[in-house]
Amino acid sequence: MNYRVIFNTVGKIGIILAVLLCIPTALAVALSESSWWALLTTVGISLAVGLVFTFAVRPKSRAIFSKEGLVIVALSWIYVSAIGALPFVISGAIPNYIDAFFEMCSGFSTTGATILTGENIDAMYLTDKALLFWRSFTHWIGGMGVIVFLMAFESGSSNRGMHVLRAEMPGPTVDKIVPRARSTAQILYLLYIGFTAAEIVALLIAGMPVFDSFVHAFGTAGTGGFGVHSDSIAGYNAACQWIIAAFMVLFGINFNLYYLWILRKFKSAFRSTELWIFISVIVASSAVVSVDLALADLPFASNAHDSVRQAVFQVASFISTTGYSSIPASAGDINAFPLLSKGLLFLLMFIGGCAGSTGGGLKVSRVAILCLAVRKELRRVVHPRNATAVKFEGKTISDEALNGVVRYFGLYMLILAATFVLLCFDGGTGLTVESNVTAAVSCVNNIGPAYGVVAGGYYMYNWFSKLVLSFAMLIGRLEIYPILLTFAPSTWIRR
Amino acid sequence: MNYRVIFNTVGKIGIILAVLLCIPTALAVALSESSWWALLTTVGISLAVGLVFTFAVRPKSRAIFSKEGLVIVALSWIYVSAIGALPFVISGAIPNYIDAFFEMCSGFSTTGATILTGENIDAMYLTDKALLFWRSFTHWIGGMGVIVFLMAFESGSSNRGMHVLRAEMPGPTVDKIVPRARSTAQILYLLYIGFTAAEIVALLIAGMPVFDSFVHAFGTAGTGGFGVHSDSIAGYNAACQWIIAAFMVLFGINFNLYYLWILRKFKSAFRSTELWIFISVIVASSAVVSVDLALADLPFASNAHDSVRQAVFQVASFISTTGYSSIPASAGDINAFPLLSKGLLFLLMFIGGCAGSTGGGLKVSRVAILCLAVRKELRRVVHPRNATAVKFEGKTISDEALNGVVRYFGLYMLILAATFVLLCFDGGTGLTVESNVTAAVSCVNNIGPAYGVVAGGYYMYNWFSKLVLSFAMLIGRLEIYPILLTFAPSTWIRR
Repeated sequence: MNYRVIFNTVGKIGIILAVLLCIPTALAVALSESSWWALLTTVGISLAVGLVFTFAVRPKSRAIFSKEGLVIVALSWIYVSAIGALPFVISGAIPNYIDAFFEMCSGFSTTGATILTGENIDAMYLTDKALLFWRSFTHWIGGMGVIVFLMAFESGSSNRGMHVLRAEMPGPTVDKIVPRARSTAQILYLLYIGFTAAEIVALLIAGMPVFDSFVHAFGTAGTGGFGVHSDSIAGYNAACQWIIAAFMVLFGINFNLYYLWILRKFKSAFRSTELWIFISVIVASSAVVSVDLALADLPFASNAHDSVRQAVFQVASFISTTGYSSIPASAGDINAFPLLSKGLLFLLMFIGGCAGSTGGGLKVSRVAILCLAVRKELRRVVHPRNATAVKFEGKTISDEALNGVVRYFGLYMLILAATFVLLCFDGGTGLTVESNVTAAVSCVNNIGPAYGVVAGGYYMYNWFSKLVLSFAMLIGRLEIYPILLTFAPSTWIRR
Repeated sequence: MNYRVIFNTVGKIGIILAVLLCIPTALAVALSESSWWALLTTVGISLAVGLVFTFAVRPKSRAIFSKEGLVIVALSWIYVSAIGALPFVISGAIPNYIDAFFEMCSGFSTTGATILTGENIDAMYLTDKALLFWRSFTHWIGGMGVIVFLMAFESGSSNRGMHVLRAEMPGPTVDKIVPRARSTAQILYLLYIGFTAAEIVALLIAGMPVFDSFVHAFGTAGTGGFGVHSDSIAGYNAACQWIIAAFMVLFGINFNLYYLWILRKFKSAFRSTELWIFISVIVASSAVVSVDLALADLPFASNAHDSVRQAVFQVASFISTTGYSSIPASAGDINAFPLLSKGLLFLLMFIGGCAGSTGGGLKVSRVAILCLAVRKELRRVVHPRNATAVKFEGKTISDEALNGVVRYFGLYMLILAATFVLLCFDGGTGLTVESNVTAAVSCVNNIGPAYGVVAGGYYMYNWFSKLVLSFAMLIGRLEIYPILLTFAPSTWIRR
């Protein structure tokens, strides 16, 4: 294990974090909010620790193998969450450190699960805009990845970073858009910045206040879902809701396809099977939920347009794993939806966005490959001697890749089961099998909202459950292996 | 496809069914219950249809390949459920045919899910003992398998039946105890009869009435769970409950091990990894649930002995997939349990009994192999070039077998998801995400009880949901492939 390169890289991440924290600090100063000193203190701590790690621990060798890649990614994400939580604790906005750590794991992992109550959030909107900005900004940073950010802007970074990029990017495979990892990271970030800017402009035109436009664009871009009002998105006009719904879908699509569009390779972009499955699932689910809502005759979906809007918004929010809600909290959040809609949205939680998007979940391509593997197995039972090759996206999938996806699914279900049972040790008021199942599924898939008492937030859970969910969110965002292997003794013991 | 041998075999199953139906018919006559003519009519129908299929459709060739084996098993089970439902409909005890079909799918698949209300059952206990006997007897028949029964007692059955035996027996692999399939089937049934008789005697000694002892022994042997009182097992004394708990565990163990014990091969029997995992999970879960119940201070678990008894009984009932309950219905059935116990029992539903037992679920060995596959994948991520062999029960598992188990798990989860979403179309009163999730899990794993409104029975579901659950139960009992492939067009189309 190359310890030095691990500490060195985590140190660099600390410096970047300090730089990024300057933005909310400046905002706090500009708005004369009392949190400016809490933010500034954190900038100082992050910078100091970062500089020590970066310059005191010089790596002898820059060799990074897949083991180091996984550990670097896991430790970096835990580190940014741990440091990112400080401004909330120091300022007193979230006095309990575990609560703040949960909030930051939720932020960087782009989950959007919050321990704040609706009243907390509404109060912070009046006096702590800078902290809310930082909270949503972590979605934006976490969406594309902190290491990808480092690689995009670090000078001298060479091709060696592909292991790290692979460990951090979502989906079963990472295609290098261009041969060099650094250029790939730069292209991804440029696209990401462009789309975010487009959403901000669109929201401003639709009439959303400037601050709100920025934080919601961050939340959409990272498919995070932190809001700045107790009503999430329900309080904004229909135009704003449609814009956010559209961008949630756009950020759930593989960014490589956008690059292909820019290169005018429309044919190969539109040939993506994953894209068409993603779109089809959204259209079909929206249609079913629309009809279900129209038949249920709910106050927030009293006419055809409202039913369709609520359906499309929630479907886009769940499948992209954003977690914004356009249902008023007073109406009961997602619990107000009829059973069929709730059931469908529950399943969409598992699917998630496309590989190479900022969305969480299993990813569309993994679910598709899983179905193909299952079909192959069914064929094998009938015709034991005929082995047919499995094709996806026009390419034959090797048996190893196929089995890797199915085993990943098995591991994923075991993680869900473990998270669920650990939550059941919590005797919090109103917690049920339903709330714990959906909380586990929601956090591992980086969505945010859950059913039952935790529809509005996770404040009913105790500190142990919050820690469990914090790691569940990081495990989900980093696709299991980095976090799990970093905590496995065999990773650290020399054999 | 060898159609003739399929129809011929299903016909023979029909004749056997007619013979087995004579037992409740005789009981009805002896007790002068009005259902005797309904039972006798069914005997006639089953015999007539069976004779026509058996003698009119003589197979030209007796060749059975895996495809024919799967179709024979699936059609036989659907056939016995369809015919077995007639006495209930003709006698008027269950007027709706779909309800009766559900009840019989639940019976033969050893699920124990019922559409009868508590009052229905208590009323039938007074006037329709013969029908209740038949209802529980289907558990006993379904536990070891209807085809295994045919093979054990059909003269001239040769080795060709191994394909059929494999398709019907639970677990990832079927070991032939002895070289000939017929002898294996005979040994299994002799052990099965012996254990059932032992339980009947034990229950009689403990003070349970004769009729009740028989039906509950049938329900335990098949790990089914149909009771004859609205309170399931809660109304009997503690001795009866301990006896049933013990036998639920015994019937959840691989029958091959009992054969090894009889042969005095104790060493190889006790070396079974699956057995030790099964026992460990039961002991550990019982301990946690006992403490959880003791802390919750519930009326039905007010002292230490009661807490342990309720814990052990429910743990044994869920992991063996029997589904008997020792919690009074008036106390709220399984819903009365505290959250941690409910959560743990929910996970036990997935595990199920050992391979080669009458228990349902994924089977202990499959879950163990799944965990080993996942561990192998984790190792592969760290050390991509070191492929270590996976061992279970002292033998190396081939990659094909390993991947087969993991793909089976993927297929199983897809079936669960499909069952769940189809149930969500039902607008029945009180149905929730929790009730539908647990109902789907409970039926596919052949357990019976579920959480929420369906804790006591499935009567709130509409006819469509009942059909979905009926097939889910058969899919679970036959381990997916037979039912799924019988309904796949590609099985029937010549290519």
